[in-house]
Amino acid sequence: MELFNKAVIIGTGLIGGSLGLDLKKRRLVREVVGLSRNRKNAGFAKKAGAIDSVGSSLEEVRDADLVVLAMPPEAIIATACKISGKIKKGCVVIDVGSSKEKIVSEAGRSIPFFVGCHPLSGSEKRGVGNLSSGIFNNSICIITPTAKTDKKVLRKVTLLWNKLGSKVVILSPERHDRILAFTSHLPHAVAFSLVRSIPDAFLGLCSGGFKDTTRISASDGNLWSEVFLSNRDKLLLCISAFQNNLSSLKLALQKKDKKTLVKILSSAKRKRDKIR
Amino acid sequence: MELFNKAVIIGTGLIGGSLGLDLKKRRLVREVVGLSRNRKNAGFAKKAGAIDSVGSSLEEVRDADLVVLAMPPEAIIATACKISGKIKKGCVVIDVGSSKEKIVSEAGRSIPFFVGCHPLSGSEKRGVGNLSSGIFNNSICIITPTAKTDKKVLRKVTLLWNKLGSKVVILSPERHDRILAFTSHLPHAVAFSLVRSIPDAFLGLCSGGFKDTTRISASDGNLWSEVFLSNRDKLLLCISAFQNNLSSLKLALQKKDKKTLVKILSSAKRKRDKIR
Repeated sequence: MELFNKAVIIGTGLIGGSLGLDLKKRRLVREVVGLSRNRKNAGFAKKAGAIDSVGSSLEEVRDADLVVLAMPPEAIIATACKISGKIKKGCVVIDVGSSKEKIVSEAGRSIPFFVGCHPLSGSEKRGVGNLSSGIFNNSICIITPTAKTDKKVLRKVTLLWNKLGSKVVILSPERHDRILAFTSHLPHAVAFSLVRSIPDAFLGLCSGGFKDTTRISASDGNLWSEVFLSNRDKLLLCISAFQNNLSSLKLALQKKDKKTLVKILSSAKRKRDKIR
Repeated sequence: MELFNKAVIIGTGLIGGSLGLDLKKRRLVREVVGLSRNRKNAGFAKKAGAIDSVGSSLEEVRDADLVVLAMPPEAIIATACKISGKIKKGCVVIDVGSSKEKIVSEAGRSIPFFVGCHPLSGSEKRGVGNLSSGIFNNSICIITPTAKTDKKVLRKVTLLWNKLGSKVVILSPERHDRILAFTSHLPHAVAFSLVRSIPDAFLGLCSGGFKDTTRISASDGNLWSEVFLSNRDKLLLCISAFQNNLSSLKLALQKKDKKTLVKILSSAKRKRDKIR
């Protein structure tokens, strides 16, 4: 069942490219056009079957029913502004960024049918070389409508993600950012700082625990700087909460207070055991 | 090729039990006796084929050629002391603890042929229910001899781990602890603190990144308190180094200094990309 006629995906990296692949595979759109800052990447996405054709400019959005903004936060906001005068009436525009409040507020200002989306299917791997089918299947996609969001458009975007196999969770942009600051942005800040703390000479003796704990620190520095800055205030609160927890552990260790140490570590274990 | 006649494994959990399984499977010892604080666990290890019989007391070590201490650090040190008057001349005693300086110094005092070992094959999963064959294969085992260590015994213990498929790395106990403080103990301290920072209500929206970053926080609290305390001074230095790195990131975020932020995150990515 085709939900849209022509979709334009701007940014044919891991998420944008994989989305194109599944939109076509599941026949949810009739035609997918891909745009990329780097034409070679879009060409690769076409070769991989993720898009039908490589667009030459933002003019491509003029007859689109669906536009997907799949770039870092600042580019999403800048591009939303650029296309707002070009898209036809009724065109649905979604993004797939990792923070929502700033994006939804800025993009929603100029685009009537803008719906913020965040598929939790990202990876430290970036780029069209890593795109793959099925990454949205059995995954969560958070959709962040506002009071202004058209109900029919929200239902259609929800249906789109459902058809891709995602479980949709509806949150306000503010609540999305508060939760993701804890569950995603803080772990990234911690992982980046952790890997920076290890002397280079010791990298050869890293076991599985270290590798898992720091996997997401292989994520792109520019992308994550923008995610951090776009959710700055909430992330700063999370970092402070984490710093307090680490300080408590450090203090117990300094005082050789085994009882408190066991209590701290066991409460963490109990909480982690709840996550499947 | 049998390297030892009778081996006694004290502590038949994940590492002890899995070691028994592979010692028998690869015919490196003629007989494996298992001892556990909890007789039921040792019974389970026997059922799983990890040991030939369940020992009833520490008297079992009297005719052993190899004793493996596979418990948390404090129990390793206490048990080494208890068996030192019982083992026969020439009996090789090894441990598999996650810190080495304190263990090797204490156990080495009373046992002439004590060799500290640390197979990097641990997991957040504990206990005999998780034991499995082959966890030492293609894995690193660090052996930490001292000036007192008998060269022939060191060669035999090295051969034992090689026959289990492990790549042996020889380090002094002090250097082992300095490296592992960074590559293992610090990541554990960070993961425990990270999971404690997340409000319970948000646990349902954790993606793969959060799960990987906190996986090792499901490790046993008592075991890890002892590991932390047994390597306290070095771990405290690592925690301070990490705190400084996180503070730099936080400061750049506070100052909305994107250039510095990109520099910090990109340097972490470059370092992480070196680890395979």
